[in-house]
Amino acid sequence: MPRFKDPSLTSKPSSKSPRVVDPKNVKRSVDPAALEMIDVVQEQGVETAFDRVKAQQPQCQFGYKGICCRFCMMGPCRIKSDEGPGSRGICGANAWTIVARSVGLMILTGCASHAQHGNHITHTMHMICDGEAPSYEIKDEEKVMKMCGKLGIDTTGKDKVALAREIADKAHEDFTRLKDEGETTWITDMVVEQRNTVYRTQNVMPHGIHAVISDLVTQAHVGMDNDPVNLVFSAVRVGLADLAGKWIATDLSDIIFGTPRPVMSEANMAVLDPSKVNVVLHGHNPLLSEMVIEAARDMEEDAKAVGAAGINLVGICCTGNEVLMRQGIPLCTSFSSQELAIATGSVDAMVVDVQCIMPGLNTVAQCFGTRLITTTDLVKNPGAYHIDFQEAKALDHAKMVVEHGIEAYRERNTRPTHIPNFKEKLVAGWSNEAILDVFKSVNPDNPIRVLNDAILSGELKGVALMCGCCNLKTFQDEAHIEIAKEMLKNDVFVVSTGCHAQACAKAGLMDPDKVDEYCGEGLKSFFKRISANSTLDVGLPPVFHHGSCVDNSRAAELVNYMAEDMGVDTPKIPFVASAPEAMSGKATSIGTWCVTIGFPTHVGTMPPVEGSDLIYSILTQIAGDVFGGYFILEPDIEIAGQKLLDALEYRRWKLAIHRQQAEDKDTQLCQCW
Amino acid sequence: MPRFKDPSLTSKPSSKSPRVVDPKNVKRSVDPAALEMIDVVQEQGVETAFDRVKAQQPQCQFGYKGICCRFCMMGPCRIKSDEGPGSRGICGANAWTIVARSVGLMILTGCASHAQHGNHITHTMHMICDGEAPSYEIKDEEKVMKMCGKLGIDTTGKDKVALAREIADKAHEDFTRLKDEGETTWITDMVVEQRNTVYRTQNVMPHGIHAVISDLVTQAHVGMDNDPVNLVFSAVRVGLADLAGKWIATDLSDIIFGTPRPVMSEANMAVLDPSKVNVVLHGHNPLLSEMVIEAARDMEEDAKAVGAAGINLVGICCTGNEVLMRQGIPLCTSFSSQELAIATGSVDAMVVDVQCIMPGLNTVAQCFGTRLITTTDLVKNPGAYHIDFQEAKALDHAKMVVEHGIEAYRERNTRPTHIPNFKEKLVAGWSNEAILDVFKSVNPDNPIRVLNDAILSGELKGVALMCGCCNLKTFQDEAHIEIAKEMLKNDVFVVSTGCHAQACAKAGLMDPDKVDEYCGEGLKSFFKRISANSTLDVGLPPVFHHGSCVDNSRAAELVNYMAEDMGVDTPKIPFVASAPEAMSGKATSIGTWCVTIGFPTHVGTMPPVEGSDLIYSILTQIAGDVFGGYFILEPDIEIAGQKLLDALEYRRWKLAIHRQQAEDKDTQLCQCW
Repeated sequence: MPRFKDPSLTSKPSSKSPRVVDPKNVKRSVDPAALEMIDVVQEQGVETAFDRVKAQQPQCQFGYKGICCRFCMMGPCRIKSDEGPGSRGICGANAWTIVARSVGLMILTGCASHAQHGNHITHTMHMICDGEAPSYEIKDEEKVMKMCGKLGIDTTGKDKVALAREIADKAHEDFTRLKDEGETTWITDMVVEQRNTVYRTQNVMPHGIHAVISDLVTQAHVGMDNDPVNLVFSAVRVGLADLAGKWIATDLSDIIFGTPRPVMSEANMAVLDPSKVNVVLHGHNPLLSEMVIEAARDMEEDAKAVGAAGINLVGICCTGNEVLMRQGIPLCTSFSSQELAIATGSVDAMVVDVQCIMPGLNTVAQCFGTRLITTTDLVKNPGAYHIDFQEAKALDHAKMVVEHGIEAYRERNTRPTHIPNFKEKLVAGWSNEAILDVFKSVNPDNPIRVLNDAILSGELKGVALMCGCCNLKTFQDEAHIEIAKEMLKNDVFVVSTGCHAQACAKAGLMDPDKVDEYCGEGLKSFFKRISANSTLDVGLPPVFHHGSCVDNSRAAELVNYMAEDMGVDTPKIPFVASAPEAMSGKATSIGTWCVTIGFPTHVGTMPPVEGSDLIYSILTQIAGDVFGGYFILEPDIEIAGQKLLDALEYRRWKLAIHRQQAEDKDTQLCQCW
Repeated sequence: MPRFKDPSLTSKPSSKSPRVVDPKNVKRSVDPAALEMIDVVQEQGVETAFDRVKAQQPQCQFGYKGICCRFCMMGPCRIKSDEGPGSRGICGANAWTIVARSVGLMILTGCASHAQHGNHITHTMHMICDGEAPSYEIKDEEKVMKMCGKLGIDTTGKDKVALAREIADKAHEDFTRLKDEGETTWITDMVVEQRNTVYRTQNVMPHGIHAVISDLVTQAHVGMDNDPVNLVFSAVRVGLADLAGKWIATDLSDIIFGTPRPVMSEANMAVLDPSKVNVVLHGHNPLLSEMVIEAARDMEEDAKAVGAAGINLVGICCTGNEVLMRQGIPLCTSFSSQELAIATGSVDAMVVDVQCIMPGLNTVAQCFGTRLITTTDLVKNPGAYHIDFQEAKALDHAKMVVEHGIEAYRERNTRPTHIPNFKEKLVAGWSNEAILDVFKSVNPDNPIRVLNDAILSGELKGVALMCGCCNLKTFQDEAHIEIAKEMLKNDVFVVSTGCHAQACAKAGLMDPDKVDEYCGEGLKSFFKRISANSTLDVGLPPVFHHGSCVDNSRAAELVNYMAEDMGVDTPKIPFVASAPEAMSGKATSIGTWCVTIGFPTHVGTMPPVEGSDLIYSILTQIAGDVFGGYFILEPDIEIAGQKLLDALEYRRWKLAIHRQQAEDKDTQLCQCW
């Protein structure tokens, strides 16, 4: 009899309802810099998201639970009762349909965003290969060769540019393929074969990314799908398309800009330097930000000519993560506090590309003399500067960005700044390639075995991908940090992305000096062991920065490496995911593929699903039967941490038992359980 | 000084607010058959949309006006005030952004639906050409040749199958093309060159249909676009992609099933025959319904074997229009009353494909022994029968549908039926090809000139495309019929599609015997003139049935013929559009391209735009400056009719003046005005 119950059977939410926003409390953060700046903007009467979240209370519970439908002009319709005509929309749509549409809509925006990101990079890689984007290059030949291996591209006699073009061709096909024209390569060639079988059997294998998006959009049209399972599984297909889009983005970004390697840097608002031209890189796609870095290097003297001590680039959101991972650019702050960074008065220019750019930014920017610069026709903001950033003239356009910063610095002159004196040091840059390099010091032939052995031996409890946004329904960073600490204390190897990584960075959880403070005995001994012979010139941090939110694909890659090595399907691996403060559509699409890949997936802020017990149970229970992964929807920090640990412990125990049985029988690890 | 003011300057809504649903009145229809059946279901306690629309009152005004945002998990957010933190979403999104997202979402579902329809037919045409779909054929060689001419396909030495494959290839490209890879062929090759120039200048020319959809989906992600003009113009691009998708659907359907020609039939519930196996064809795509017709012809004896007098096929919604247009299959009823048709107790099977299939159908079907049969994995309904309809085995699968009907008839036995004794005769089948054939009796060389001359001479006031859905915010069919009558009385040539066509059919407005009753003197004289030498064996009806809602592309084609002949851009043509009871996402996407093609476009039920004066004014005013077409958002029937007539009269007057000036100068018609 098992010692632990399968947590998928006990993953019901805690009795505690989601924490209601206290309408009196504007200081919804645990980040000391943010807290200080909230006081500053409150004194100055400058409106930020912290005021707006207060003003929005109380929020509509029909919308919150997903039982409001606005897809046609008969509506809005609400599920008002359990039975009778008020229990359905005017067309007759059930609660489950309306809930599935509500959360499906978020998944759609997430997948489309990652598709746009991946497609943009694919297009640029084609331009590079055709000599049309001279500011860029095919930098990482090793990654080119690795991808050719994964994609089955014959490398004989071809140079890296020719091979990169073939990779880009395959990525291009993944965006354009229509139904009945095949399967998405960045799924089939990336996951273990058992997963492909599951995706085919369950009819969730995506064909092409755009076509799959369009299909789910039409399924939400009036008088289309009313089948809860069919709708959820179509959304799962979109979730897998999301994974493909972002995986393409990661792989191709590594090829163009280099695969990240460990790098020292700093995080939080004190990275702003009032004596320099401060340019904030904000958004998601490295195509722009990498060029701004290059432009800034060329333009130091221009900055000095106007009296600045130089140019200081810092990052926000996932652009911040991209440039931190590859270039060590310091991190300024994360999503919720983006307006507060501007309110320091020290940001001369903020250049943005796509996603999570608060529309409220420009109002604050105009108060503090910051030039907000938009760069794509998918994101504009009235009153902001706009540079139509073209890959063909990338460096020239990046220089225009820096020029704006220098000009704004000149105007800033002696205007007072207020920069909270908080920053933490950190080590970032932990691509899987970088992590495996460390493991190689223990096992040069099969580095992933180092991680697997540590789990099987009980030294580690498993791996947690911690990720996701900030969401002011919670206190900024609180759940991120507390759950991460709980994982570390309990010997979980934590990889972290997105705004979660930024919370950890700001809280010192990526500082190698903090290992003793935060890590359990097993994790400490693991770190000691793997760093004993390592040639790294940096220490290992408690939490490993795995990249931007697009780079959650790295976690998918990691679990596949682990599963391949153990000879099992990915849901057997003690690997969980957690987005304690999920907010965006991207978080919902990421969560969806996390479940399909087999992760018990914690979400700490509620998606709009509580209005249908059926949909709720599909996500939290049935998903586990079908895909191995399932959602843990749990706003309570302590309970969430425990559920994640339970899920890891259960899998680790089961894996160890079966490993033991296999060894007893002197046979290969049994694959039938 | 002009006699008439440009109506775009006076298109503000009437002071009357949208008619509020009277919560006491369940009888929201003017269709006598529907009214009778509402009494029947009320007596029997069977719930239908007429009950649900009551139960939904009052409806949320934030959602109704488009100022509720549910795209991320910080929300739901509402625009609660004109200023202060409550005037924006938590992210800082303005009212205009939230409104643009609200209506943009509807446009997306419409475009995706037409894309799926067009793509399905394209895929089938490829299968036909490859011999993989033997139930279908390339039937209409004349249309193949016409399309090759439009698309610039060299026909030398190629048979119709080879040419059809090339047409399908071009259509396929329109779905898959990514950004920077060209323009949508079914726009560039279909509209007058002046329109293409406008679309390019305004940056709204779509590249590929799916990519354009995906782009707008990402623009609605948190922290993306906050620019009202950029958002609206992106939605316009999706609207044009919608036009391309549906135009492909029409053209390729004509090739596979034949271009419609005038045909006599009947409409309303008395077309159901209790002595026969009644199979209702419901949905939108002829791929399924045409096969069911063929199957039914083969299976008459099977029906007689169980005691039925035969098989009686009837249509609902646009499948009803498709099979009426090409095969003369009688029309049963329209969208709002689809459940009522089942409540007659005489429907043995209802087979559906995509769009406007009320999720409430199956509950009613189970009460009355009707077998509801779904046929695509995009539309399922728990409890319904499901046939996985495959084009490769189309006829076999269609026979399974008819078998269900026969089996259900056997079970029906002597169960009582209640069929309202209302039906009207009609002539349908008015493709542009059929209309031009009639005009040829007057001008064999240039048939479209017949219509243009009638307008320039003042015999006709212009052309109106009347289209769109039913929406129970109004009384079913009332606005459809009243505005159509107003147009006819004032000598407007009315082409009609979708549920508007069905309202007209049920009300006798497509009965040639009713011309004298409804048409003004000019229209009567026009009809008399063009039918004098015609070889038609049917009379001309007051309203011309132009097809399904996908076939609104026929109106786009017609106005382009008129503009080409006059040597002007399409917005100069006295051609208006009206959707008096618009309901679906498709209605919003259709309305959008109607505006871009230059139609003053009336919508009688409000899209969610009233929450932003800025968006409202872009749609109703600025659109006119940019595209020539503009929205007339007007729920009042009388005022709407007058605004449409004013718009026609203004254009006709302007056109005639300039034609006169051109003749005076003995030059070609001046193109610069």
